[in-house]
Amino acid sequence: MVDYAQPKTSSALALSRHALSEQYKQVRAFSELICKPLVTEDYVVQSMPDVSPTKWHLAHVSWFWETFVLSAAQPGYTSLHPQYTYLFNSYYNSVGARHCRPRRGLISRPTVTETYQYRRYVDEHMQALFEHLDESRLSALTPVITLGLHHEQQHQELMLTDIKHVLSCNPLNPAYHEAPASPSLSVAPLSWITYQEDVYWIGHKGDGFAFDNEGPRHKTYVQSFQLGSRLVTNGEYLEFIEDGGYSTPTLWLSDGWRTVQEQQWQAPLYWEKRDGQWCMMTLSGLRAVNKYEPVCHVSYYEADAYAHWKHARLATEAEWEVAASGLDVRGNFVESGVYHPVPMQATLQKEGPTQMYGDVWEWTQSAYAPYPGFRPAPGAVGEYNGKFMCNQFVLRGGSCVTSLSHIRPTYRNFFPPDARWQFTGIRLAREVEAHA
Amino acid sequence: MVDYAQPKTSSALALSRHALSEQYKQVRAFSELICKPLVTEDYVVQSMPDVSPTKWHLAHVSWFWETFVLSAAQPGYTSLHPQYTYLFNSYYNSVGARHCRPRRGLISRPTVTETYQYRRYVDEHMQALFEHLDESRLSALTPVITLGLHHEQQHQELMLTDIKHVLSCNPLNPAYHEAPASPSLSVAPLSWITYQEDVYWIGHKGDGFAFDNEGPRHKTYVQSFQLGSRLVTNGEYLEFIEDGGYSTPTLWLSDGWRTVQEQQWQAPLYWEKRDGQWCMMTLSGLRAVNKYEPVCHVSYYEADAYAHWKHARLATEAEWEVAASGLDVRGNFVESGVYHPVPMQATLQKEGPTQMYGDVWEWTQSAYAPYPGFRPAPGAVGEYNGKFMCNQFVLRGGSCVTSLSHIRPTYRNFFPPDARWQFTGIRLAREVEAHA
Amino acid sequence: MVDYAQPKTSSALALSRHALSEQYKQVRAFSELICKPLVTEDYVVQSMPDVSPTKWHLAHVSWFWETFVLSAAQPGYTSLHPQYTYLFNSYYNSVGARHCRPRRGLISRPTVTETYQYRRYVDEHMQALFEHLDESRLSALTPVITLGLHHEQQHQELMLTDIKHVLSCNPLNPAYHEAPASPSLSVAPLSWITYQEDVYWIGHKGDGFAFDNEGPRHKTYVQSFQLGSRLVTNGEYLEFIEDGGYSTPTLWLSDGWRTVQEQQWQAPLYWEKRDGQWCMMTLSGLRAVNKYEPVCHVSYYEADAYAHWKHARLATEAEWEVAASGLDVRGNFVESGVYHPVPMQATLQKEGPTQMYGDVWEWTQSAYAPYPGFRPAPGAVGEYNGKFMCNQFVLRGGSCVTSLSHIRPTYRNFFPPDARWQFTGIRLAREVEAHA
Amino acid sequence: MVDYAQPKTSSALALSRHALSEQYKQVRAFSELICKPLVTEDYVVQSMPDVSPTKWHLAHVSWFWETFVLSAAQPGYTSLHPQYTYLFNSYYNSVGARHCRPRRGLISRPTVTETYQYRRYVDEHMQALFEHLDESRLSALTPVITLGLHHEQQHQELMLTDIKHVLSCNPLNPAYHEAPASPSLSVAPLSWITYQEDVYWIGHKGDGFAFDNEGPRHKTYVQSFQLGSRLVTNGEYLEFIEDGGYSTPTLWLSDGWRTVQEQQWQAPLYWEKRDGQWCMMTLSGLRAVNKYEPVCHVSYYEADAYAHWKHARLATEAEWEVAASGLDVRGNFVESGVYHPVPMQATLQKEGPTQMYGDVWEWTQSAYAPYPGFRPAPGAVGEYNGKFMCNQFVLRGGSCVTSLSHIRPTYRNFFPPDARWQFTGIRLAREVEAHA
Repeated sequence: MVDYAQPKTSSALALSRHALSEQYKQVRAFSELICKPLVTEDYVVQSMPDVSPTKWHLAHVSWFWETFVLSAAQPGYTSLHPQYTYLFNSYYNSVGARHCRPRRGLISRPTVTETYQYRRYVDEHMQALFEHLDESRLSALTPVITLGLHHEQQHQELMLTDIKHVLSCNPLNPAYHEAPASPSLSVAPLSWITYQEDVYWIGHKGDGFAFDNEGPRHKTYVQSFQLGSRLVTNGEYLEFIEDGGYSTPTLWLSDGWRTVQEQQWQAPLYWEKRDGQWCMMTLSGLRAVNKYEPVCHVSYYEADAYAHWKHARLATEAEWEVAASGLDVRGNFVESGVYHPVPMQATLQKEGPTQMYGDVWEWTQSAYAPYPGFRPAPGAVGEYNGKFMCNQFVLRGGSCVTSLSHIRPTYRNFFPPDARWQFTGIRLAREVEAHA
Repeated sequence: MVDYAQPKTSSALALSRHALSEQYKQVRAFSELICKPLVTEDYVVQSMPDVSPTKWHLAHVSWFWETFVLSAAQPGYTSLHPQYTYLFNSYYNSVGARHCRPRRGLISRPTVTETYQYRRYVDEHMQALFEHLDESRLSALTPVITLGLHHEQQHQELMLTDIKHVLSCNPLNPAYHEAPASPSLSVAPLSWITYQEDVYWIGHKGDGFAFDNEGPRHKTYVQSFQLGSRLVTNGEYLEFIEDGGYSTPTLWLSDGWRTVQEQQWQAPLYWEKRDGQWCMMTLSGLRAVNKYEPVCHVSYYEADAYAHWKHARLATEAEWEVAASGLDVRGNFVESGVYHPVPMQATLQKEGPTQMYGDVWEWTQSAYAPYPGFRPAPGAVGEYNGKFMCNQFVLRGGSCVTSLSHIRPTYRNFFPPDARWQFTGIRLAREVEAHA
Repeated sequence: MVDYAQPKTSSALALSRHALSEQYKQVRAFSELICKPLVTEDYVVQSMPDVSPTKWHLAHVSWFWETFVLSAAQPGYTSLHPQYTYLFNSYYNSVGARHCRPRRGLISRPTVTETYQYRRYVDEHMQALFEHLDESRLSALTPVITLGLHHEQQHQELMLTDIKHVLSCNPLNPAYHEAPASPSLSVAPLSWITYQEDVYWIGHKGDGFAFDNEGPRHKTYVQSFQLGSRLVTNGEYLEFIEDGGYSTPTLWLSDGWRTVQEQQWQAPLYWEKRDGQWCMMTLSGLRAVNKYEPVCHVSYYEADAYAHWKHARLATEAEWEVAASGLDVRGNFVESGVYHPVPMQATLQKEGPTQMYGDVWEWTQSAYAPYPGFRPAPGAVGEYNGKFMCNQFVLRGGSCVTSLSHIRPTYRNFFPPDARWQFTGIRLAREVEAHA
Repeated sequence: MVDYAQPKTSSALALSRHALSEQYKQVRAFSELICKPLVTEDYVVQSMPDVSPTKWHLAHVSWFWETFVLSAAQPGYTSLHPQYTYLFNSYYNSVGARHCRPRRGLISRPTVTETYQYRRYVDEHMQALFEHLDESRLSALTPVITLGLHHEQQHQELMLTDIKHVLSCNPLNPAYHEAPASPSLSVAPLSWITYQEDVYWIGHKGDGFAFDNEGPRHKTYVQSFQLGSRLVTNGEYLEFIEDGGYSTPTLWLSDGWRTVQEQQWQAPLYWEKRDGQWCMMTLSGLRAVNKYEPVCHVSYYEADAYAHWKHARLATEAEWEVAASGLDVRGNFVESGVYHPVPMQATLQKEGPTQMYGDVWEWTQSAYAPYPGFRPAPGAVGEYNGKFMCNQFVLRGGSCVTSLSHIRPTYRNFFPPDARWQFTGIRLAREVEAHA
């Protein structure tokens, strides 16, 4: 679920008028760059309730600028169309009635062309704002503008995630783009890295942007633990499948086992067996499963069952953040243009854990909950995060369709435990004592 | 439900090679003419399981020509794409597996442009067939070619019906085309025409095309009855609404009352109250309800409840056919370009019943069942009609979106009793004795 | 569906005060006799929405006497409990609000003992009525009293039908009673009896009781046809199963095939394969399938598919009534105490068709519809039959759980085409010409 | 959800053979004492999937003794009936196939009498075991016997909870027992008790019985916080209702708001408005809402929304355990015989928080998750707790239908956030700084 956060204090933001405007242009341009490979028809389809049509994403992010920036800056501001507020509100009860989410795919108009016109209209008003708004009011709006940039980046990730799902529903297996397949190079064996028990500080420190759910920074007690040195691969996950993982109830959470049976899961989402060989739908079309790539498109239930089968567990989000705290934020992000997880390159192997950032979001065993002292922002943006703190699990580290400039060590993504259409994967953890 | 019928014997058809080819061109061209007002996005949407995307209709009718004509005429014939057989089969189990009906709206490819290319491909092969196939084989194929023409006409009606539903789901109320509103001219009062009891012949006589479900022609005993001189109007139906028709269970069939409650029906489909005034979505956008137009988009349940409230009933299909037998087939059909029922013009009023053809399909109280001696055609076209003879009611007379060349006195359309998205309306009947 | 009919004119009923009272006692006693084998717990369970708890049946029929007789006869009459009117109304909208049908099994109170007390209370008032009501008022009430008797008989059949379903849901396979298994004696081969085309009179003549849906008596044209000489047997139906009947879509109505797939039907209700052998749950517990018994617990869809597979069809209700018109009403009814269909005894074989009455209700291909000139009774009893004339098929002849005194040649039972828990079976019909 | 835990090490249990036997008798007797007010019919009903028939509870706990104790102690042990293992397994995949949970209410047999015979049969075998089993084997079995006692106590609570739900579905509002209504005495105003931040030890210490989910005992960092001095009352909750709590989406979690709308919640479960006055169904029948009683039968969603409305929050389970650590375990438990929460008696008011034990289970904001180092027991009893650690929230403190001997400061109960049929209520918490 994409959620809109309250930025930290505006004093933390020192972007110049020009820099803000340039950032805005870059982020907005990237949304449209993502759509380049699409035909008009692709923009329209909603393949399941969780998926939104690309056309809707493009309009909704513009609605966000209108609602939280332009309307705030210009009291007389009017949208390009009086009904767009209704059509493109996602879930803000404070802002008014809205079009029902599962029916977003029934709306053929505004057309794609009109949607781009809507974007132009918003861009022109935003540019005017960057150029002409007086300093104090621009400064006051900078936090919500920064939020808008991160919001649009979140939808960029969703656009790629959703279009993959849409194309996967088509028996013609159309490709979104042509990317070379990953090389089939063996990866290093999984090893375990040990962390000592202590009271640690967790959560965002206060410099730079963060969503409201990343704070307050606070102390937490972490028992000593071990973390897997890399992500779990398709090849390792195949062993779980071939060992009967999907037909052994004792490996699964109770809700997970019910889901396996109801949905008849036999493998990760997008996998299918053709002539005895496992293939997977990718944004480059149908491909054979590469054993060395990180496993992707697994639910929390599958991640947990796999860990159980390996006599291990998933990390807590505090453990993950402790392990990530000293590492550089780099990896296979959307900027690589691959849009697919890649095998860990041996040359990147170091002392610490690898693949902590990018490739796939890592399920943690932490239910998504407020940090001690958390308070949602007042007003509509307070609906961005807090109201989803129930029945979801935290994921960390970003994926191959996340922007590098969007991720942080303290970033908390969250999805329900049965969600599989996101780029989600597995890193193992375990107790120290059991393996001393 | 569109259904494919077995043509009568081929000897009944004496169309020349040229005439056949011309008919083909005309029918095919009209399918595309219907699409002229659409934007690409409109072709993609499936607004409910009963509705198909326009793109799908255009491709499916082409699939029909491929499957039942071109493949039969040319053993080595191959479709433009190997997957189209799977994607565009509607419900022919004999022909093989098919894409699941409620998922037709998830398929963004083939694109609209590719769909028209598919039509061109089929047209070229059909033209070659018309020009070069030897006389005896063309003669043998003429029945199924004629069936294909009527099949495509049925889908033309569905395209208009479905696109109306798609556009109605959009809060922007887009218009498909601009047509002038009907004049608000009062219609003649409803009178009753009496028919005497007798043994009548019912069903298709054998000259010209008919679907298999229109025969065999057979004798049936019809008790004397009276038929309403015209269709029920919006104004008359409003009286039923205002008298609490939708909240009086004793007026309704048991299944109808359950449907009213579950679906929260308060008026015909496409009606909504805005600022205290009843409006309706039309193919020309949202309009005020015109009291003199025939009521349209009512289910069998509503037609039956209305009749009950008027101390009348619906006609049986035999009664309707008896009454229609001597009348000219004329009325407000798709050729008028209005695509909406119009008030009965006083100048058309005659001795007999008016509006028997065109404007709206008239619900009869006859469950859709085989005529005595009915046998479906052998092979796949046998699935056209027979397998739907359950849980549906017969409708007669065609509508404002039916082609004049498509309708006949013996034509049996059929839909489930809760269907409302077709252009369906009400004509009353009653016993003679009760009103002597 | 049990339905309550309007009796014919009271003048048609000439029962003496004493005879009425005796009939009442007999019918009421039989309801309780049926319950003798039950334990208290059996009375409580509702195993699916169509099934009612036995306890509910016992109370509902008492409610009927209260509502339509006692309250009419004695203006100040009060029920034993003020809430019973709410709890035990089945579907009479005219009578007021009622307890939701699928929740009848959630009501542990009134207890079984209290339910019998309720019956006693009603019986005492009814006896007082028989003894003391003045002649003219008794005469006026005789039609609805007669209706009440037939109503209670309908519920007696439902009680046996429903308790069979309840016990069948129990893995312990409890028996309702111990009855000897049918002998495994071969039955005569199925032959065809021919009837000539003509105008026939159909419907109830007017002497004696009939439900309102059996009239008006009217003329109908029946084409010549042939009727199977006996019911279809389990052995014959097994051939259909073994020939892949349940996996061949072209044999089925479209709705039927969808139902087969959704419900995963593989055989009639109550059949299951144990160690390679077909068994069936009966009111005497689990038994091996006897090949010579009439097949039972099949839906309309299965009856139609079987007939299709045999290149035959089901009879219309008019055909059935023509064939039944001269026959004695005798057969395997509830009075035999077997509560299960039995193989046709060779000694009963005659010129005409056998097994027309009793054993199993015979599905006809006639949708349940009003006869020409039908009008429901005024008031609440008008809801007995008419409002169900939609999406149901007519069955004829009664079954092994119907009372002999309850059935007539003109009796029209009706159920939706997917219903299987009633004692429903198959008789074939076909055209004459095709087999000359 | 009742769950079966692994006992701590057997060395921790020093009960004599006699004491064990006596405990067994007491616990078993109490299960039957609870049923005393029931009529046979009450034992049969399953009013929703989460509820089990009382008859099933009585048999299932016996099955537990058979499966985990008698079968382990006596290799040749056979159940009273070969099918009982199938019928009365709750959710142990390791133990084999089982009857589907939502169909427990369809099983009229075994009867109530047979169920008690089954209990006798198990009791006799257990008594023989207590008397004759050699010391070492009895000692080895003592942990699982202790588990069985606690397991049966959990089902005792469920029996009362479930029978309340069953009776509440009955429009007759039957009472389970007659208990005097609580006095309408005003309670003390809610005050706040402050706790200091620190590293605390949480979880079971190791003496005496505990479920596996209560350990391992471990350190956790708790920020300073304030806890409400008593439970939230009906009167306070009424203010929330009257302030539009159920129609203000911004007060609710997103999932909670969807649930409010789908379920049309307007008040706690069992509340209904009659003639303008709020009443509630209790185990003593319908009563007026007493403003001073603790609010009960609220979901997590409602507890959270109420806290939000009060500018407070729910406690974490660690906070609750810190606050409870020094308190006596006393309160309104099942032993009081009231089976309903009671107003806080002023005389009980002390320095610390009151009503921490008994009355109602207190929702915490902690998702139910494994403690650091948690490992489920090997074998089937390992399914008792661990597999439910998903989509549930922890509740603390026991309720008016919990046994005093069953509860502990470390006891972790858990239910999904929409569950309302348990005796669940609200205690508020908040940050210190915001109110300094």
